[in-house]
Amino acid sequence: MALTIGVDVGGTKVAAGVVDDRGNILEKVRRPTPSTNPKETADTIAEVVDLLKGKFEDVTAVGLGCAGFVDETRSVVMFAPNLAWRDEPIKAIVENLVGLPVVVENDANATAWGEARYGAGRGHDFMVLVALGTGIGGGLVIDGELYRGRFGVGAEYGHVRVVPDGRRCGCGNRGCWEQYASGNALVYEARELARVSPALAGRLLELGGGRPEGINGPQVTEAAREGDAAALECFRTIAHWTGQGLADLTAVLDPGCFVIGGGLSDAGDLLLEPVRQAFANALTGRGHRPLPEIRIAELGSAAGIVGAADLARS
Amino acid sequence: MALTIGVDVGGTKVAAGVVDDRGNILEKVRRPTPSTNPKETADTIAEVVDLLKGKFEDVTAVGLGCAGFVDETRSVVMFAPNLAWRDEPIKAIVENLVGLPVVVENDANATAWGEARYGAGRGHDFMVLVALGTGIGGGLVIDGELYRGRFGVGAEYGHVRVVPDGRRCGCGNRGCWEQYASGNALVYEARELARVSPALAGRLLELGGGRPEGINGPQVTEAAREGDAAALECFRTIAHWTGQGLADLTAVLDPGCFVIGGGLSDAGDLLLEPVRQAFANALTGRGHRPLPEIRIAELGSAAGIVGAADLARS
Amino acid sequence: MALTIGVDVGGTKVAAGVVDDRGNILEKVRRPTPSTNPKETADTIAEVVDLLKGKFEDVTAVGLGCAGFVDETRSVVMFAPNLAWRDEPIKAIVENLVGLPVVVENDANATAWGEARYGAGRGHDFMVLVALGTGIGGGLVIDGELYRGRFGVGAEYGHVRVVPDGRRCGCGNRGCWEQYASGNALVYEARELARVSPALAGRLLELGGGRPEGINGPQVTEAAREGDAAALECFRTIAHWTGQGLADLTAVLDPGCFVIGGGLSDAGDLLLEPVRQAFANALTGRGHRPLPEIRIAELGSAAGIVGAADLARS
Amino acid sequence: MALTIGVDVGGTKVAAGVVDDRGNILEKVRRPTPSTNPKETADTIAEVVDLLKGKFEDVTAVGLGCAGFVDETRSVVMFAPNLAWRDEPIKAIVENLVGLPVVVENDANATAWGEARYGAGRGHDFMVLVALGTGIGGGLVIDGELYRGRFGVGAEYGHVRVVPDGRRCGCGNRGCWEQYASGNALVYEARELARVSPALAGRLLELGGGRPEGINGPQVTEAAREGDAAALECFRTIAHWTGQGLADLTAVLDPGCFVIGGGLSDAGDLLLEPVRQAFANALTGRGHRPLPEIRIAELGSAAGIVGAADLARS
Repeated sequence: MALTIGVDVGGTKVAAGVVDDRGNILEKVRRPTPSTNPKETADTIAEVVDLLKGKFEDVTAVGLGCAGFVDETRSVVMFAPNLAWRDEPIKAIVENLVGLPVVVENDANATAWGEARYGAGRGHDFMVLVALGTGIGGGLVIDGELYRGRFGVGAEYGHVRVVPDGRRCGCGNRGCWEQYASGNALVYEARELARVSPALAGRLLELGGGRPEGINGPQVTEAAREGDAAALECFRTIAHWTGQGLADLTAVLDPGCFVIGGGLSDAGDLLLEPVRQAFANALTGRGHRPLPEIRIAELGSAAGIVGAADLARS
Repeated sequence: MALTIGVDVGGTKVAAGVVDDRGNILEKVRRPTPSTNPKETADTIAEVVDLLKGKFEDVTAVGLGCAGFVDETRSVVMFAPNLAWRDEPIKAIVENLVGLPVVVENDANATAWGEARYGAGRGHDFMVLVALGTGIGGGLVIDGELYRGRFGVGAEYGHVRVVPDGRRCGCGNRGCWEQYASGNALVYEARELARVSPALAGRLLELGGGRPEGINGPQVTEAAREGDAAALECFRTIAHWTGQGLADLTAVLDPGCFVIGGGLSDAGDLLLEPVRQAFANALTGRGHRPLPEIRIAELGSAAGIVGAADLARS
Repeated sequence: MALTIGVDVGGTKVAAGVVDDRGNILEKVRRPTPSTNPKETADTIAEVVDLLKGKFEDVTAVGLGCAGFVDETRSVVMFAPNLAWRDEPIKAIVENLVGLPVVVENDANATAWGEARYGAGRGHDFMVLVALGTGIGGGLVIDGELYRGRFGVGAEYGHVRVVPDGRRCGCGNRGCWEQYASGNALVYEARELARVSPALAGRLLELGGGRPEGINGPQVTEAAREGDAAALECFRTIAHWTGQGLADLTAVLDPGCFVIGGGLSDAGDLLLEPVRQAFANALTGRGHRPLPEIRIAELGSAAGIVGAADLARS
Repeated sequence: MALTIGVDVGGTKVAAGVVDDRGNILEKVRRPTPSTNPKETADTIAEVVDLLKGKFEDVTAVGLGCAGFVDETRSVVMFAPNLAWRDEPIKAIVENLVGLPVVVENDANATAWGEARYGAGRGHDFMVLVALGTGIGGGLVIDGELYRGRFGVGAEYGHVRVVPDGRRCGCGNRGCWEQYASGNALVYEARELARVSPALAGRLLELGGGRPEGINGPQVTEAAREGDAAALECFRTIAHWTGQGLADLTAVLDPGCFVIGGGLSDAGDLLLEPVRQAFANALTGRGHRPLPEIRIAELGSAAGIVGAADLARS
């Protein structure tokens, strides 16, 4: 049985797994990312690969999912702010260190591929992944193939501008979608609400230890599950922006299925129902076109490993 | 030599041509669209096809580019407000009338294909067409193939929302891109300027016969060519929104080339230079990624005929 | 009985009347404004004054309500775009021509004073007039006195910015309130609706002779009275912006009464009810403060004459 | 010599002083506000008044400047969220406790009066105070008199809406001016910048102890004084919104002078110059009207005490 290793290389951790040809992870390992030093990050990748390779003889290839712009040859990470990589020939470096063929992919693309093959996107040839976490990770499957764009940097949905002169974004622009529809945006809403309306946001403040900046995403979800009005209002706001953005992507891409992943997707129906509603209200041509499905991701944080490993196989 | 016929079926006219395998139009014919009656429109299509077929023996197939939503089997026009078609099985109807195989495509898609094969998009495998006319017509070529989406209705870029609670759009929503970046948007700007600042817009009013609503697009272009400050301001405004929208599409699609067509593209560099500038300012990740080209379309209104004919060939 | 003459000097007509000390107009006269020539406009004012003065012996003074910026000494019109006046010493000129003391006032201020003394503002010492016509005319009565500001140009509410980067205004800025809440704004909404959704706006188009630009304000009011959904939607939109603006003025001025005048006020409750609703929703501190009344003006176009005449008396 | 006592009753402290008829504070005292209990706050006021009165025989009256809505009789605080007062007859209560006549005024009104009489507004009969602190405190002097509005709650400039659907405000609305132009807004900008662009905001983060939420207003001013680009950008943003708002107030009020106070005014020319520039760009009718002066407040936090004491004298 051919096995491959998938590695999810993020700004805070390197997570790797051995994956079989049905998308099962046989063994997993995880290290913190030594992010300030590009070379050390490559060494860490090699270390986890070696460790896994030592336990399974049949490993034939390695897939890396990296948080950054990956060039169209899937060899070079052009820009990865959280990994301190600029034009890093990471494929060659890691192949040299581990002695196996390596494929490099953007981490959200790897996640999209994992969900498309083995998760919520199964059976859909036209799938859009939207991972709502710190920002928005995006991936796109067209005709059953991962879409990479001309230069390898497509599907960066989070930086579509949705509000002229809107909120600042880390990318240097203003009004990017991920400032309105992401896990961070949910926390932003909750903290802003707690700051200006502490009475209304009493439960959120309580969970946050009394300070607006103490509130985190899982707490907002928890409060919303309890029926807290303030938390539910935060969810409605995020869902409104999410649904509008999915409608915009539908105008461009006309997919058969959206898969919503990322930490925010843990909220499940709390998020999904108002997103569907907002989407239906915002879609152009509604009533005259078939609608895509909107689903919650199924593989959680494993999707990136599974997807990277599967890309290495083909 | 295999010839095919391309027919551009718009709300006001049916234009058809015999096209060879190098994209040349050998003969053309044109009729007004009898738009209030779906059946008559089909008859008109059959009439122009018969007329052309009578002159060229080698015609093997017919491609229709229709202003509307075309289903994923390329057989049925699901919704065409300007043609009074709803779920019209136009492929079967026309095949029955003319005795040749028929392919149906959205008109902007046909235009995109024409430009991709024989016009400004030649040599680009990842091309986005943006036709700035009454609204925005969109087309997309991926890996050298026309992209149709899961249900046949992708690349409707004009209905991406760019301003929350913005200008009304004919689609029923508000803030759609085509309300800010199209030939109509240019006229809107010019008329609004003439309405509120008649002194500044003196030349535009003069060309428009003294009334704001008399101003049309070619007049704005004419005044801008003369260096009229008001007309140039209108162009800058449209170019700003166009460039921003192309940046948004780049975040999603990462194409190698944009082709700008439609009536507004007749303005050439008057439009192109400020669009490029606005695009460069708005693109996320600028400085860390290769840039797509932005070009003016080359085939003009013939692109739809050439594209539809070529799609019928393959 | 002391009589005075009030003259309403607008961009299209000069309307004058003899007014008694209870605000009754005893006789009226009207001439078109020869607006392109400042001197002729003064002559026209003198002509109507002479004509009225010839019929009533007891006329003791003249009040002019002029569409423009009037200086703090009430002598000079600093800027009146529609009358072609710049720093015109109109008090001295007219006194010289007619041999009576003259007081000059901004036309909306004169209207406010008329309504405050003899119209809908009677009994209110803190009154705001908002005249919704071509633009927004504003007036303010504080402690029973007409408020003029430090330099004579206060109460220009129409040019408060309500939308960043919003609609162009004739003043050169963008997003001014009068572009969203005025008679012209109503027509703008109706024409825009007719342009993009002709089916929905069928009745409006019918009244407008089939063309969006044929639609005028009284037609929108007529259609709204008939219950036409499109016209009612236009009214709701205007009322929303009007109510929000009144809430903003309340934050600044805390008046006891708003009087809504101008051509749009002819719509009566069609306008008043949704304005009150929007105001109540938008007011800061609602529930913790007394609310001002919101009334429709009572004197119609006569308010300017009555107000100017009354100002001349005191 | 007649002396009066002014008391500034804020959410965190009660500050009082004995003031002579030239606006000099002869002695000062200060206590924390026992804000959770309305009665205790009145007792604290009485305590500081008794203490000061014991030292100066000639004290004839007491003026209270309270953070809240004060009714038009200057007797009752209708609503003071930070003092836990609702319809509190504070004049009667304090008169009873201290045996002197008491005048109650809104705190920003008292500050405005202090600046108008003895500070930066001297010599101006039409003055607007804008105190940029936690929010925006507003005051208005018309014809040399403090303006109170019909119900005592005018000059709440901070809650004019400047952005439709903008930032949340503690008042329950969205888009209020004080969310964009205040000391808090400066901190908000700086923290947001540090959050999304830590590299650019390095100096601000350093001052803030490494965390965005550690950054405070004086630190932003300090960094701006050093020439830090990020801090200067934050000031420009705040100044832009401040200048726009002053232009809006000028359209309504046409004052002779603006006085900018509050904690943010400590920044002096760093704030003043870009505010003047933004104001000049935004004013309607610029070029055709006299301009108001824009000055920085002179009395600092003493203005409220001085103003309240002076109001008690008259």
